[in-house]
Amino acid sequence: MPELRKDPVIGRWVIISTERGRRPSDFVHIREQKRGGFCPFCPGNEDKTPPEIFAIRPPDSPPDTPGWTLRVVPNKYPALRVEGELNRRGEGIYDMMNGVGAHEVIIETPDHQKTLGDLDTTGILETLKVFRERILDLRKDTRLKYVMIFKNHGAEAGASLEHSHSQLIATPIIPKTVIEEMEGAGKYYGFKERCIYCDIIRQELRDGIRLVYEEEQFIAIEPFAPRFPFETWILPKQHASHFENSSDDVLRHLALTLKVVLQKINLALQDPPYNFVLHTSPMQEGPLDHYHWHIEFMPKLTRIAGFEWGTGFYINPTSPEDAAKYLGEIVV
Amino acid sequence: MPELRKDPVIGRWVIISTERGRRPSDFVHIREQKRGGFCPFCPGNEDKTPPEIFAIRPPDSPPDTPGWTLRVVPNKYPALRVEGELNRRGEGIYDMMNGVGAHEVIIETPDHQKTLGDLDTTGILETLKVFRERILDLRKDTRLKYVMIFKNHGAEAGASLEHSHSQLIATPIIPKTVIEEMEGAGKYYGFKERCIYCDIIRQELRDGIRLVYEEEQFIAIEPFAPRFPFETWILPKQHASHFENSSDDVLRHLALTLKVVLQKINLALQDPPYNFVLHTSPMQEGPLDHYHWHIEFMPKLTRIAGFEWGTGFYINPTSPEDAAKYLGEIVV
Repeated sequence: MPELRKDPVIGRWVIISTERGRRPSDFVHIREQKRGGFCPFCPGNEDKTPPEIFAIRPPDSPPDTPGWTLRVVPNKYPALRVEGELNRRGEGIYDMMNGVGAHEVIIETPDHQKTLGDLDTTGILETLKVFRERILDLRKDTRLKYVMIFKNHGAEAGASLEHSHSQLIATPIIPKTVIEEMEGAGKYYGFKERCIYCDIIRQELRDGIRLVYEEEQFIAIEPFAPRFPFETWILPKQHASHFENSSDDVLRHLALTLKVVLQKINLALQDPPYNFVLHTSPMQEGPLDHYHWHIEFMPKLTRIAGFEWGTGFYINPTSPEDAAKYLGEIVV
Repeated sequence: MPELRKDPVIGRWVIISTERGRRPSDFVHIREQKRGGFCPFCPGNEDKTPPEIFAIRPPDSPPDTPGWTLRVVPNKYPALRVEGELNRRGEGIYDMMNGVGAHEVIIETPDHQKTLGDLDTTGILETLKVFRERILDLRKDTRLKYVMIFKNHGAEAGASLEHSHSQLIATPIIPKTVIEEMEGAGKYYGFKERCIYCDIIRQELRDGIRLVYEEEQFIAIEPFAPRFPFETWILPKQHASHFENSSDDVLRHLALTLKVVLQKINLALQDPPYNFVLHTSPMQEGPLDHYHWHIEFMPKLTRIAGFEWGTGFYINPTSPEDAAKYLGEIVV
């Protein structure tokens, strides 16, 4: 059983994922690893993943066989497990609990060669709809407080398999970063009685200097204080706290915006490794006036080093205004 | 002039280091970069760095010439600059200030082939003494609130030059991570009237299951909730809040402990990339009962991915108990 452990000073939780347990020699191997070879996410290899939770496939096609266009499966080496009790406990001054949660993989396409950015907007839309459905399903389990949906693209961004996929991890506690965001946005709301993200959208639309793309329902901006070169945020213009409450129409506009951003980034930076992270409200809470869901998209062009680890500061060699100018000029 | 910018939601500061300004094409180049070639830190190339701030060299040897055994120089591409005023200001809802501070490089050895772990304890001791002297010097500038000393070893840990060196960045604000640590330790002290790190040391010495090394004045442990496999902390047994107040005798014991830890890690993991970060109290403050300086040593064997970025949680596939067992069994 994985364990959730809390750093006693800083309150940061870590998942000790002993089921992935690694010896020192395994790490030496990882550093030398080459890509390619067998792919458990390709059609025909459905028996190499745990049984599927959901799939888009023709009505007559049985589960865990080829024919699908999108597939959701439990992670074979889950960071957290659905079974069991939390069993919060101490060990001297330390605190821990069982690693209860869910860890799923969304295989976005049967085509091993395609990236998310290569899919047409219909393909991206199907992926976004599946994100929504998985959150709506998982929130029925009230032990789970948060669902984090993210994508690692490229080995340097932490992807261990090449075949295009996103992941979902549902946690029994609200993560530290989410709490900080909610509290920061809450303080602003308490002071101004306005959503800070709505204010950001207004200022960015007025100034225009960090705007990457705007359409009817969404904007893409370089944030004012980006951690990474070409970090790009996508926000719905209309205030909404929970991604999973988005209508099909909203998701259609998001798919279009995401496609444009991916194309611009891929053209500007020649298909860089990247992470994207869906920031949304804790799923057991009702609609919130002070929080605004959004996507944070981070190309991985620089490396995190000792200074960042020690301070929580980031050194970014590219201003968001310069990045917005480059991306804005790229026609897609 | 570099800019310090604050994320309006989460309060995280970033340094927009425009003097390192990079175009998209520069990043594509970085990813393809090979190591080797000209080294500005090697003897004979002293004119390729800014003039030295300090050096250990024979009495008759002029500055910025060969003959040194250790050299401190300003970073040629500084993240922060010593000149100028902070000029705190706003831009709509955003906050920023000038990037005032210091950014120095400590070249630990003239020998390009040697790593810090290859130096004898005398060489490591000289490096530690220089860390102390640089903090004592910089704290005279009361605009500077914190000095972060860190080391990036290996390209995967963010080192851009191979030649063994550490870095120092002095910041005009106390970094977020430091504030979180100070606050966490302060809360514990308020509750227990004991230093939390002293309690950690007591528990780890009693339990022994996460102990890597112990000598008269220092211990090396795997922390209870490590972010990374083989993350190792080195703490002085005697309570002390400020590294720069350490006596020569304390630093001698630290040099020995650091040498042992580096040897164990290098043997276990075959010279892995790593970061180490000195965690010490803000230099303008007097001695503190609730904070305890220490070194956090982080081999970089796994990659940070979307989940970590979004949550602040870390997934660690190796338990600290397993890591301590491996490292403890290695004889150096």
